[in-house]
Amino acid sequence: MSNPTAAMLVIGDEILSGRTRDSNMYHLAGELTRRGIDFREARVVADDHGAIVEAVQALAARWDHVFTSGGIGPTHDDITAEAVAAAFGLPIDVRDDARAILQAHYDRQGLELNEARLRMARIPEGATLIDNPISAAPGFTLENVHVMAGVPTIFEAMVASVLPTLVGGAPLLSQTLTVERGEGDVAALLEEIASAYPDLSVGSYPFIQGGVHGVRVVVRGTDKAQVDAAVTRLAGMLEA
Amino acid sequence: MSNPTAAMLVIGDEILSGRTRDSNMYHLAGELTRRGIDFREARVVADDHGAIVEAVQALAARWDHVFTSGGIGPTHDDITAEAVAAAFGLPIDVRDDARAILQAHYDRQGLELNEARLRMARIPEGATLIDNPISAAPGFTLENVHVMAGVPTIFEAMVASVLPTLVGGAPLLSQTLTVERGEGDVAALLEEIASAYPDLSVGSYPFIQGGVHGVRVVVRGTDKAQVDAAVTRLAGMLEA
Repeated sequence: MSNPTAAMLVIGDEILSGRTRDSNMYHLAGELTRRGIDFREARVVADDHGAIVEAVQALAARWDHVFTSGGIGPTHDDITAEAVAAAFGLPIDVRDDARAILQAHYDRQGLELNEARLRMARIPEGATLIDNPISAAPGFTLENVHVMAGVPTIFEAMVASVLPTLVGGAPLLSQTLTVERGEGDVAALLEEIASAYPDLSVGSYPFIQGGVHGVRVVVRGTDKAQVDAAVTRLAGMLEA
Repeated sequence: MSNPTAAMLVIGDEILSGRTRDSNMYHLAGELTRRGIDFREARVVADDHGAIVEAVQALAARWDHVFTSGGIGPTHDDITAEAVAAAFGLPIDVRDDARAILQAHYDRQGLELNEARLRMARIPEGATLIDNPISAAPGFTLENVHVMAGVPTIFEAMVASVLPTLVGGAPLLSQTLTVERGEGDVAALLEEIASAYPDLSVGSYPFIQGGVHGVRVVVRGTDKAQVDAAVTRLAGMLEA
């Protein structure tokens, strides 16, 4: 039985302009791997309605889950919720449950729930809210798309609320061997191991550190005994 | 006249598994912005032939330039060059010029140009080599696709050799105002500025620091006088 699959859509001009370095993809990747959900594709698009709609449709059709990051705030460039609704051909409007959450939050702070903030209560028809313990404005799940904020602390909190609701698979285990030899020296051995263990993935990640060329070999799989056996065998071959 | 456009394709299981945090996208984004090339889309796919072929075809058809990162080393999981050739329906084989570069490099180091290393001389028909000043194995440009290594130091060196050969546009200028107010408080002002300056983009990036909610407002455009005017007007509105 294969693991469920996932994709991510990062929405934001600030990533593509080089102003901000995305950290949400890296965070999500680690969380999905721990839960046994295979992260298969990610896309980054600009704050552009057509681009978001097209990417949501493509990813939602192909993978079990899609996680989006960014574009659900109160400003004119926050267009993710509208675009996700449009991707599924569903209407979107201010929803009472989301409005009540925002009203309570701003009342507590003595702030006005003005027109801009009310935009954050716009939720597509049929969506389930995702709790935002940090700044109240909720994310939402529509079909297989989980729409979350771009601010990393909020994104991470939303991931933490959504993931336990999803069915995971066998977590991917990995072991790493660091080899201070050129990648070309060990390539044949790695291919031999990869062929001998077709259920495992054998990745090879060259590095340069202090002028020394080396390789980190990562053996991944869901069966701990197999991963251990492959790494032991590889270590033996490298010593030989 | 609009600026040329670009996309990036990151190839690598290690990014999707959360093992490695990609830095090449952030680097490329900054370099493209400085050169006046609009970075419009990025994708991350696994080390999977079909996924790479499809992404290369989609991105190359849509944008002026595509930059790929990863998967051109000597090991069995380095399949990018084959996939890019396949995306354009072109043959690929060991090419004499690339082989000569590798032979000279390994001769200097007293290492053997073995079968695995020779894989790195496989270059699609009609491609132009991209210099690799660090570990010799070249990247290549095929049609509008620039195929580069994933190791950040090598990726960055390859970007530095490719970018000067491309026609850029007017560099994107930006100014940032940091506002210690909730995004919902300033959203209406930002929309007013965005409407008044349709040639500029007005981005709003909320942050939380030490419990304080604030917004970084970034005004971007290619006309310095307009960017300055918009920022001055916005600063005045925020003080009022």
